[in-house]
Amino acid sequence: MKALIYDGGLKISEIEKPVPEKGMALVKILYSSICNTDIEIIKGYMGFKGVLGHEFAGEVVSENSRFYGKKVVGEINCACGKCLMCLNNIPKHCFERGVVGIYNYQGVFADYISLPEKNLHEIPEGLDLLSAVFTEPLAAACEIFESAGVRPDDKVFIFGAGKLGLLIAQVFKLSGCDYTLFARSDARVDFARSLGLNSKKLADCGPTEKAGICVDCTGNPEGIKIAMDRLLPRGTLVLKTTVARPEKIDLNQIVINEYKIIGSRCGPFAPALRLLGSGLVSVKPLIAKMFDFKDIIGAFEYAGNPGALKVIIKHF
Amino acid sequence: MKALIYDGGLKISEIEKPVPEKGMALVKILYSSICNTDIEIIKGYMGFKGVLGHEFAGEVVSENSRFYGKKVVGEINCACGKCLMCLNNIPKHCFERGVVGIYNYQGVFADYISLPEKNLHEIPEGLDLLSAVFTEPLAAACEIFESAGVRPDDKVFIFGAGKLGLLIAQVFKLSGCDYTLFARSDARVDFARSLGLNSKKLADCGPTEKAGICVDCTGNPEGIKIAMDRLLPRGTLVLKTTVARPEKIDLNQIVINEYKIIGSRCGPFAPALRLLGSGLVSVKPLIAKMFDFKDIIGAFEYAGNPGALKVIIKHF
Repeated sequence: MKALIYDGGLKISEIEKPVPEKGMALVKILYSSICNTDIEIIKGYMGFKGVLGHEFAGEVVSENSRFYGKKVVGEINCACGKCLMCLNNIPKHCFERGVVGIYNYQGVFADYISLPEKNLHEIPEGLDLLSAVFTEPLAAACEIFESAGVRPDDKVFIFGAGKLGLLIAQVFKLSGCDYTLFARSDARVDFARSLGLNSKKLADCGPTEKAGICVDCTGNPEGIKIAMDRLLPRGTLVLKTTVARPEKIDLNQIVINEYKIIGSRCGPFAPALRLLGSGLVSVKPLIAKMFDFKDIIGAFEYAGNPGALKVIIKHF
Repeated sequence: MKALIYDGGLKISEIEKPVPEKGMALVKILYSSICNTDIEIIKGYMGFKGVLGHEFAGEVVSENSRFYGKKVVGEINCACGKCLMCLNNIPKHCFERGVVGIYNYQGVFADYISLPEKNLHEIPEGLDLLSAVFTEPLAAACEIFESAGVRPDDKVFIFGAGKLGLLIAQVFKLSGCDYTLFARSDARVDFARSLGLNSKKLADCGPTEKAGICVDCTGNPEGIKIAMDRLLPRGTLVLKTTVARPEKIDLNQIVINEYKIIGSRCGPFAPALRLLGSGLVSVKPLIAKMFDFKDIIGAFEYAGNPGALKVIIKHF
C-alpha cells in the first residue's frame, strides 16, 4: 500500500499492508486531516519516524470484525490493558502505549491502518465523513472541561483562533460560560464571529481584562506568556500546545498567584461524535482545502502556513 | 525603634516607630524567624526594599485594641477589603495588598510592627511563643491540601527536607497519605526519621518509583525537574519555590502527561495554630540556632547555608 513516511524528510512510499492481529481490525482510510502535531513532528517533536497522521474517517474491511463494512473513526492511544494506568481506566496514559502516527505506532496517511477494535467508534447515521474527521480534535476540545474543572459561570479567555481554538470556543459556547476567543487579525475575528462565536482582537484586550480560565491554543510559547498574564489569581491556565523544546516560564507568578497550569490532550470520542451528529458544533467551515493523497506533501506545505485552517486528505 | 533594613545591603537602622491607624494594632515583636523568602529577597526577589521579615510572635501594645496585652501571630497579606479578590473572600490575593516584609509593607525584623487587627490571631493558652513563630510556614504547609485536592489514599513524594519540607511532611503524615520525604543526605534522612517521618535518600529512589502528587520544597529549579520526573500521568506537582528568575520547564511533559502544576503560598492560620497547640506537629526540633536581634546580620549568614534549619531571632 502507499503511505506518507517521515524519516527526516517526507516521502510517499510503497509499504506492506498491515495484517490485523486478534482483536484488531483493518481500516481503509477514506479521509484524513493534518494536525499541528504532524507539523511539529516534522520539526523534531517526539523524534517520531514512520507513517504520519492520526485524524481520519474510514471503513472497516476486516470481515471477521464486528465493525465490518461500517464507517468508523478511531482513538489514537493504543493501550496494553495491563499496566497501572490501564487498570485505573486511563488507557490514554498507558505506560506501554503506541500513539497513532505520533509514537511507536504507524499512522493514517496511508491506504490502510490496523487498529484495536476497542479504539473504533462507528460514525453515526447522518454524520458525513468529512465532519467525522474532526472527531479527534473535537474530543481534545471536550477534554478541557474535565481537565480544568470548568463551571458554567466561569469567565474563559481562549488565545489563538486556529483550528483547535475555533473548536474549543464552540465547546465553551455550549457550556454557557462567559468566553472570548482572541485572534490576532481582524479577518480571523470576523471569521470566528461568522461561526457565531464571541471573538475579539487580541490588541483590543485591555491589560486589566482577566479571566479565571485561560486556554492557550496559539501553538507558540509567547501565547503561554500572554495567557498567564491574563489569568486572575488562583486561575487555571490550560496548555494544549506541544512544542519541540523546553520553554522558560515564570514560576514565581505561578506560586504568588497560586495558578493551576493544566496540560490536556486526547479526549473522549463519544461526546465529540454526539456534538458533531447533532450539528451543535460546526466543523465544515474550518476546512481550508482538500488534497488528493498523491498530493499530500504539497498539503503539508499548505498546512504549515501560519493560521492555516484544516487541510483534508482524500484517499479514494 | 531599631529595624533590619534591606536596601541592596542589610543594615540595622533607627527608624520611626509606626503609628497604627484605625483598625490596626501595634505589636511588639518578641521572636521572629528567617524564611527562605527573606534570603531570596536579598538576592533580588520581588525587588523589595525596606524592613524585612514576616514570621513572628509578639504582644499587642495598643491599649485601644481588642488584642491589648495578648500574645499574637499575624497573617502577612494586608488586604484592601474592596477589590474583586477581597469581595470573593480571597484577601491574600487582594490586588492592592501589601505583604509584610515582602511587598509594599514593612516587616517584623524590628521592635514593632503595625498590623490590621483582622490579620491577628491570639496565641492559644499553652502554646509557647517559640513554637508559635512557626504558624506562618505551617499554615503554608496546610494550604497544600486545599490547593492540590489531596485525598487520604494519595501517594505523595515530597522533595527537599529543609524547613518547609519537614513541616509539609508532618502535615501529610497527619492526613493518612502514603507519603515519602526525600532528602539528599543520610544525616537529613536520619533527622527526619527522628521526627517520626517516612524519609528516604533521593539517590535510593528508583527511576520507576512515581507518585500522584509531588511537592517541590527544594527551593531550586533542579528540584522541580526531579519532582516532575517522578509524577504519574495526570499527577499534580505542587510548587512552593519562589526563585529570582524564570526557569525552563518542559511544557510537552505537562501536556502529554496531563500534569497539573499548582502554585501554593500562604495558608490558613487557625488550623496551623490548632496543630501546634495540640502538639501534633513538632516544630522545636527544627530550630537550628537562636540569635539576639543585634546579631541578626550574622543570623542571615547562618540561615543562608544550604540545608540550614530554622533561625530564630530574639527581640527582648
